[in-house]
Amino acid sequence: MYKNAGTPVAVLGASGYAGRELVGLLNGHPDVALAFATSESESHLDGHDLIPLADAEGRWDDARLVFSCLPHGVSAPAVARAEAAGARVVDLSADLRLSDRAVYGLTEVYRAALPEANVVANPGCYPTASVLSVLPLARAGVIDTTRPLIIDAASGVSGAGRNPRRDLLFGEVAEDFKAYSVGNEHRHLPEITRQLTAAAGAMDVVFTPHLLPVRRGILVTIHVPLTRELGRAEAESLLLDAYANEPCIRVLRGAVPQLKDVIHRNRLAIGAVPVKHVSRPMVTVVGAIDNLVKGAAGQAVQNMNVMCGFPETRGLSC
Amino acid sequence: MYKNAGTPVAVLGASGYAGRELVGLLNGHPDVALAFATSESESHLDGHDLIPLADAEGRWDDARLVFSCLPHGVSAPAVARAEAAGARVVDLSADLRLSDRAVYGLTEVYRAALPEANVVANPGCYPTASVLSVLPLARAGVIDTTRPLIIDAASGVSGAGRNPRRDLLFGEVAEDFKAYSVGNEHRHLPEITRQLTAAAGAMDVVFTPHLLPVRRGILVTIHVPLTRELGRAEAESLLLDAYANEPCIRVLRGAVPQLKDVIHRNRLAIGAVPVKHVSRPMVTVVGAIDNLVKGAAGQAVQNMNVMCGFPETRGLSC
Amino acid sequence: MYKNAGTPVAVLGASGYAGRELVGLLNGHPDVALAFATSESESHLDGHDLIPLADAEGRWDDARLVFSCLPHGVSAPAVARAEAAGARVVDLSADLRLSDRAVYGLTEVYRAALPEANVVANPGCYPTASVLSVLPLARAGVIDTTRPLIIDAASGVSGAGRNPRRDLLFGEVAEDFKAYSVGNEHRHLPEITRQLTAAAGAMDVVFTPHLLPVRRGILVTIHVPLTRELGRAEAESLLLDAYANEPCIRVLRGAVPQLKDVIHRNRLAIGAVPVKHVSRPMVTVVGAIDNLVKGAAGQAVQNMNVMCGFPETRGLSC
Amino acid sequence: MYKNAGTPVAVLGASGYAGRELVGLLNGHPDVALAFATSESESHLDGHDLIPLADAEGRWDDARLVFSCLPHGVSAPAVARAEAAGARVVDLSADLRLSDRAVYGLTEVYRAALPEANVVANPGCYPTASVLSVLPLARAGVIDTTRPLIIDAASGVSGAGRNPRRDLLFGEVAEDFKAYSVGNEHRHLPEITRQLTAAAGAMDVVFTPHLLPVRRGILVTIHVPLTRELGRAEAESLLLDAYANEPCIRVLRGAVPQLKDVIHRNRLAIGAVPVKHVSRPMVTVVGAIDNLVKGAAGQAVQNMNVMCGFPETRGLSC
Repeated sequence: MYKNAGTPVAVLGASGYAGRELVGLLNGHPDVALAFATSESESHLDGHDLIPLADAEGRWDDARLVFSCLPHGVSAPAVARAEAAGARVVDLSADLRLSDRAVYGLTEVYRAALPEANVVANPGCYPTASVLSVLPLARAGVIDTTRPLIIDAASGVSGAGRNPRRDLLFGEVAEDFKAYSVGNEHRHLPEITRQLTAAAGAMDVVFTPHLLPVRRGILVTIHVPLTRELGRAEAESLLLDAYANEPCIRVLRGAVPQLKDVIHRNRLAIGAVPVKHVSRPMVTVVGAIDNLVKGAAGQAVQNMNVMCGFPETRGLSC
Repeated sequence: MYKNAGTPVAVLGASGYAGRELVGLLNGHPDVALAFATSESESHLDGHDLIPLADAEGRWDDARLVFSCLPHGVSAPAVARAEAAGARVVDLSADLRLSDRAVYGLTEVYRAALPEANVVANPGCYPTASVLSVLPLARAGVIDTTRPLIIDAASGVSGAGRNPRRDLLFGEVAEDFKAYSVGNEHRHLPEITRQLTAAAGAMDVVFTPHLLPVRRGILVTIHVPLTRELGRAEAESLLLDAYANEPCIRVLRGAVPQLKDVIHRNRLAIGAVPVKHVSRPMVTVVGAIDNLVKGAAGQAVQNMNVMCGFPETRGLSC
Repeated sequence: MYKNAGTPVAVLGASGYAGRELVGLLNGHPDVALAFATSESESHLDGHDLIPLADAEGRWDDARLVFSCLPHGVSAPAVARAEAAGARVVDLSADLRLSDRAVYGLTEVYRAALPEANVVANPGCYPTASVLSVLPLARAGVIDTTRPLIIDAASGVSGAGRNPRRDLLFGEVAEDFKAYSVGNEHRHLPEITRQLTAAAGAMDVVFTPHLLPVRRGILVTIHVPLTRELGRAEAESLLLDAYANEPCIRVLRGAVPQLKDVIHRNRLAIGAVPVKHVSRPMVTVVGAIDNLVKGAAGQAVQNMNVMCGFPETRGLSC
Repeated sequence: MYKNAGTPVAVLGASGYAGRELVGLLNGHPDVALAFATSESESHLDGHDLIPLADAEGRWDDARLVFSCLPHGVSAPAVARAEAAGARVVDLSADLRLSDRAVYGLTEVYRAALPEANVVANPGCYPTASVLSVLPLARAGVIDTTRPLIIDAASGVSGAGRNPRRDLLFGEVAEDFKAYSVGNEHRHLPEITRQLTAAAGAMDVVFTPHLLPVRRGILVTIHVPLTRELGRAEAESLLLDAYANEPCIRVLRGAVPQLKDVIHRNRLAIGAVPVKHVSRPMVTVVGAIDNLVKGAAGQAVQNMNVMCGFPETRGLSC
């Protein structure tokens, strides 16, 4: 389970859900070795000892690439220290996603910039699913930006972290379902809007997340206003052509994805269906990812692979 | 558990989820007694013997009011026979919902017509949640009918019935989530559109249902385009004023409902939040019901209560 | 929802799972009114304001009977203060269950002592299910006390309380199952042993609880060594005869109970099956209760009913 | 996803839960290639076309080793035809487990016989977990065979198969828990008794399975009567020593396993705790496996690896 050969890497904040997923992926990655990992709440994980973050200070030299799964706000200073010590960094927190200090690690979009990047801001799980699901439509110029694009998203509980909270107890979540951050209050919205605006110009986006009684997975149902009618085959072709060479994106024909199509995989699955019985053209796109894999740890490994010149899907099940 | 006093009623199709819920409610209702109940697949339920539907033919006279929980297509002929035999009927199937033969049993809307009704078509679960959640906005004239109203809905598995199907096995549904009838293909859409159009004029409605890994409950997240800005208090007041005297509707202030607010109750709970960061005014309304209670058996009892002159919430927990 | 008529009662510790269940039952009980309820973490529940426990001190006179759902260790002093102030008490904590200060509130066993009791120690959920399931066999003298009686029990998460703990998060409990307190380490064991020993003499009891990924319910599977062979009908008759007049115990014929038979009911359901292919006689008894109802709040109300002279099942669904 | 190199193998009955798991494992196995797979109900799986079983008749020559995941009763004749055509067979059904025609594929016990075996009967999931958890105690002669060994086992729903059944619907299983085949009625009992008797002599075994609301995983809680007291360290050492060189068995120190320790792994995890407060010595052993991996498809691959001379854990995560 524990390898000593390969490029040495480190994980900060290894005991949360994303950190644990990441350590599992790194354990199975043939080209890297985990030099150290930190946690404030646990001391062992998958054959590794975990050390307090404070003890990482003398050890930056041990790692050529550092992953930060630290909480938002705590991550940025640690990233700065690792960077100052000469390590390259993939930051899974939100701290640097809207900053110029880092390359935005939506691999399929910013792949070309990764080999030279010192700091990569790994995208949020909701933005990964939302942006990639409609980007081909945005780039093709078929989105009617005078009408709002509506994203209803639902996530498993691991997206809310592993710290004890009453509202995340099994007794509260099981057999329940709820919307939160209703009214465009979610902190992931700017990440989504920024990418879509870059591709298609300014548009209104309405993003409403929901909490699902499942452990992992995100499904986004996106209602896209169109400048012209698209038949189902044409809508699918737009997506298929755009992602023909993408190893981590699967476009379905004649179907929409569900969570089970993507769980435990570094995969976005997408399907598109034109909307009937409306007076102006729309298409509904459904996208699914595993929030802990393509939405976090898997995409972080995908980014590392491109940064380090490894094959892009090394160590990943896509 | 078994009463003999009270108005005699019957239940056709008692072994499905709605039928079982209904028999449970009728067992606890002080003013009625279950004369007979039918099932093709089971022979006992909650202290009652169940008989084949064919055996009901000689017994219509035993019941003054007949509830049909029969499958769509099978229900209409049985309703006709019960009606011909002189019984009043509440039909929980979709067969008569768009027909002039029956009063549409959305109690809060068609209450006045119920006391004289011989046949009542109990609304679908999705239409009950969707229509009642936005009807006050439609009636107030604040919906911008030139833009689409987007309804994303999620239902527990009991909405899909109790007949064995591979896709409804625990092993398939647990830890999964999916959209279905994407692109306005759901048969409940016309029920929704008809009611909203009657209140606010023709408008585009996009309705996308999802299957939740829970046993019961529906949550609808409805994005409503507005003719003018509504503050949160104003939006809430519109709903509160409209439903001030409704015993089965709860409008929340400063919150949106979740499934646990309504499970096992004959209650619709609603909350409304204006959408920020959009160029044209919108409000998101979230509504929750128990699909088996306010979405089926509970509303059927509520309708019976009004039809028969019982207090409207008799036998119901609201 | 809020009644002012009836015997005034109070609930200490109303925001845990047992407390919330109890307030719900008391709201629906026709003969009592909730005078006050306390919580340290929440301020409202089901139409009632919740006050800190410290504020209860001036209000003992407002209640004729006080229910304590306080944590173990915190409960006993509060019970003493309520008692000193003249209130009768039903204590749902474990503090007094093995003490002579209180009548042990296993209603079916100690019913006769309840009308005169000032303090009643409501039994634990596991002991309620375990003891009542085999007591008729113990009293009939058919248990072979030279061999161990093995109890494997499984409980839903509400038995572990509503305080935030990482190991009770949905992300940890869903899709998992585990044994705990293995090796007779559970604090409920003495409650069980004491009752069985009183009925049948000293015997070895092995009690192993498990945590189920459900919200509520306890199932006990009890392997009982017998002094002689019992056929299935004879084993069932022993249970049926013993409990013929018990409104809250249901003995099944030819079947064993499952959680869904008892959820939301103040009911113990039991079934018994002789064990084949063994050289010395044994019977396996399966018992099921809702841990929050017959295992906590429901039995507390049942005890109150007997203490106060109300019909025993008033306010309860059995 | 689809490999053409490697030893050609076939899977009969690929669309059930065990079959699907097996095809997934074979897809990831570097030394084999799936020549064909059959199903009566589905036509595609993980990149492979599925053919009816009848069409396999002309194709036995295409596969050097055939896995049968066919239903009990259907499997034996197909195994005979494959064998007659010259293929080696691993049969996952129960048809041959008690027969002399096949080597019993409990790998850790019958490893030496596998390289020469033409037909291997893959053990049942319950027997795999039960037998391996206590076999070292049986072989060490510390089990008191004059007293019964009690096994309470709980399995996820995939153990019951993927054919539609009302009692396996999500709406029936979620939030429920039940015992079945109570009283030693389960068809897996003889498999368990046979192995334990072979190791320790005749003894009474009481085996009671339960159905868990999870998708996969088996936990067995086994109460073992002992001929002498064993301290915890001594009990653990017995297990640790016996399994020191077993790559697929993990003995825990100071802990007992839970489902999450083994899910998606070809691993049995075990822990042992002496029982306090009893007059004659006992130890409780808890064992956990993933019923679809070490309990079915994974052990089948482990057997194939030994049969074919591949490294024993090739293609498996242990």
